[in-house]
Amino acid sequence: MAPKSTLDNVITLAKRRGFVFQAGEIYGGSRSAWDYGPLGAELKENIRQLWWQNFVRSREDMVGLDSSIILPKAVWEASGHVETFTDPLVESLHTHRRYRADHLLEAYEAKHGHPPENGLADVRDPETGQPGNWTEPQNFSGLMKTYLGAVDNEEGLHFLRPETAQGIFVNFNNVVTASRKRPPFGIGQIGKAFRNEITPGNFIFRTREFEQMEIEYFTHPEDAPAAFDRWVEDCWNWFVDLGINPDHMRKFDVPEDDRAHYSAGTIDIEYRFGFQGSEWGELMGVANRTDYDLGVHNENSNTRLEYFDQASGERYVPYVIEPSFGLTRSMMAFLVDAYTEDEAPNTKGGVDVRTVLKLDPRLAPVKAAVLPLSKKPELTPVAEKLAAELRTAWNVDYDTSGAIGRRYRRQDEIGTPFCITVDFDTLEDQAVTIRERDTMAQERVSLDQVKAYLAGKLVG
Amino acid sequence: MAPKSTLDNVITLAKRRGFVFQAGEIYGGSRSAWDYGPLGAELKENIRQLWWQNFVRSREDMVGLDSSIILPKAVWEASGHVETFTDPLVESLHTHRRYRADHLLEAYEAKHGHPPENGLADVRDPETGQPGNWTEPQNFSGLMKTYLGAVDNEEGLHFLRPETAQGIFVNFNNVVTASRKRPPFGIGQIGKAFRNEITPGNFIFRTREFEQMEIEYFTHPEDAPAAFDRWVEDCWNWFVDLGINPDHMRKFDVPEDDRAHYSAGTIDIEYRFGFQGSEWGELMGVANRTDYDLGVHNENSNTRLEYFDQASGERYVPYVIEPSFGLTRSMMAFLVDAYTEDEAPNTKGGVDVRTVLKLDPRLAPVKAAVLPLSKKPELTPVAEKLAAELRTAWNVDYDTSGAIGRRYRRQDEIGTPFCITVDFDTLEDQAVTIRERDTMAQERVSLDQVKAYLAGKLVG
Repeated sequence: MAPKSTLDNVITLAKRRGFVFQAGEIYGGSRSAWDYGPLGAELKENIRQLWWQNFVRSREDMVGLDSSIILPKAVWEASGHVETFTDPLVESLHTHRRYRADHLLEAYEAKHGHPPENGLADVRDPETGQPGNWTEPQNFSGLMKTYLGAVDNEEGLHFLRPETAQGIFVNFNNVVTASRKRPPFGIGQIGKAFRNEITPGNFIFRTREFEQMEIEYFTHPEDAPAAFDRWVEDCWNWFVDLGINPDHMRKFDVPEDDRAHYSAGTIDIEYRFGFQGSEWGELMGVANRTDYDLGVHNENSNTRLEYFDQASGERYVPYVIEPSFGLTRSMMAFLVDAYTEDEAPNTKGGVDVRTVLKLDPRLAPVKAAVLPLSKKPELTPVAEKLAAELRTAWNVDYDTSGAIGRRYRRQDEIGTPFCITVDFDTLEDQAVTIRERDTMAQERVSLDQVKAYLAGKLVG
Repeated sequence: MAPKSTLDNVITLAKRRGFVFQAGEIYGGSRSAWDYGPLGAELKENIRQLWWQNFVRSREDMVGLDSSIILPKAVWEASGHVETFTDPLVESLHTHRRYRADHLLEAYEAKHGHPPENGLADVRDPETGQPGNWTEPQNFSGLMKTYLGAVDNEEGLHFLRPETAQGIFVNFNNVVTASRKRPPFGIGQIGKAFRNEITPGNFIFRTREFEQMEIEYFTHPEDAPAAFDRWVEDCWNWFVDLGINPDHMRKFDVPEDDRAHYSAGTIDIEYRFGFQGSEWGELMGVANRTDYDLGVHNENSNTRLEYFDQASGERYVPYVIEPSFGLTRSMMAFLVDAYTEDEAPNTKGGVDVRTVLKLDPRLAPVKAAVLPLSKKPELTPVAEKLAAELRTAWNVDYDTSGAIGRRYRRQDEIGTPFCITVDFDTLEDQAVTIRERDTMAQERVSLDQVKAYLAGKLVG
């Protein structure tokens, strides 16, 4: 049996420690989405906040927005999604189940190492294992619909957004008026989006319900190419700054045929997740959406979305550069890149293999763990008081259970940067031992200095 | 004409300054949801983060979760929502539109000051204004449905969650195992929920798409009443700590007939929004859900959701106390409570009325505004450098446009706690003037001390 890949190890760890649970598991589970447990919710929240701080709050040329998930049909007709946001599906004549033709071909290649010689005719039915019998491909919409109001009819038909972007475009005038920004400037948004993927898979990588972090950056048409290049660099650097090894990322210039209908040019940043078949997966993409979106809304709505430059007297429809991130894909990449197995000393004078998530401390779901060396009642009040003090600032674990080495391992494998041991000396010297996750170096720190010590180390 | 109410003033301000936009406005708008502009998105984000820090991260007895919006039909059948999450609707025989009977009666009472003597027979058709002709009430589901997978059929039928709570209940065992928590402990979650309200209204108060901040707190059945009381106090205190005047809140013990199907007791915390008719609206509620939810999932799923207490040897299904907040209702209450009109000195030695949002600094969407006294090129680099430094920590405005008094007013009305004026003296003394929003007191602070000065004042 082949050794488990890092990806497999991460998935096992994520499930075991409650980063990620299968949605609806007690009812047989759903492949459509995943639930994020206590550690996953904290990690997601940290990614969210770091992204917002870096790309929205800290930039003079950016503002935020939070638009609704459900938008009227008219928006998606204008945006082109109703017509073109479709996948070619084939139906198995054995089971009447439908599949994405391209995914069937990819799965064949992943298994056999080469594409099928005769195309779909060589692909077996995934359900029955029998030689396949397939219909011609037909287009199937990736939009999820719902009905608002008292009756299910055309009037109430709405779509769940497949991208947060349209909520930004339709508010272009509102934001310009309220924020008094002028191009080049951008609008950032974080939120759920929904796509009726036919074959969700690869853990949290491709799901029907997912979370995006998107920027629509509005420029004069002439400035669009330079802004595009700057955004590719800024996005790349964000991942590197938060600890992703740049050797595990690459840029992929998406060929015209594979680009979304609105894009005149797309660079994907891919991460080497280590999937079976193709190792690489899209982490985020920067697209040049030109004036496509504002233009179609100008044609279809009762408003002109455009900018009038008072200084030059020029009136124009801005070009849009779109950096679009997947929040949970980013989370998956941070986990895979942080996953490490190294050696730690054991009590017998030897070494044990330990698993450690070398997450950037800003990302770590738990910032510190307070570990009283024994459950004896002398230590408890000191340790609890310290934990309570640290909790006013950070997410903090408190663990009294098992040998100290075992408690270190528990924290190492979820990426906790600092373990704080309260021991019997603490009662004498009013100090504790702080152990750093990666180096395992220990330092004695006065109780009243612990919070300041951590504050200094936990800033990015 | 009656003077505008505070609520009207807040709505006007929120729309004008881009806290809130109508969703899908350029396509005629939607009553189902609102979009949050640059200031609204920041305010929402601050509420979110403060809630999460206060109720999840800072408490030893709480962990977080982030579960999916779309859940299989089986969950909602078990939870009782498919059967009982319904409203009685009547249909107008003139227009064939449907309305909630209770809302028609409330609207009549709001207009006439008394309920209709003959019930619905007295209520005119809201569309035509003619005497109404109504069908008998029929139950209508408040759940929004969608279809996943390649075909719209029963197999693919899913519902958008009408509360985040069920995602917590179905993960009870997962969380207990992963977090090693024992009752009493709670799980907190923030996220979107969807209810097909027939008559959304009152600005952002009742919408079909909305955001909840929910806690499901699991206790031994015997401890539930005490936990219930503590949570009512903790929730009340959270609003007061963040600046809501307690005289504008009240507790409402919801009578049995008006409680949700799962509740054995509910206390709502209401805020005096100042709606027409009934001034008060529900801000949040604490419900005693007993073992109802875990119990129905135990009956309907393939799992037992229960707790085994190793110390006592007792096995039991925990009771659940649920504090459930509306995020955007909270936002609306913070805005209404902060809205103030007072007097500020003008340049002629007199006073002008000024509008000021006296938001707690932790809530304020913009923490500081850097205002160079003139656009002369000497001041620009100093002011821009200061703004860039402050932006590394906070959301900061930079405004060069108009008289300084006018710029102060712009910041006052969005609640910016500190305005920092860079003037010609700054070039000499390397200091700036910091003006506090509420007192309008001014202080000269050295340029290299501004960040530390604000950091000290902006903490809660």
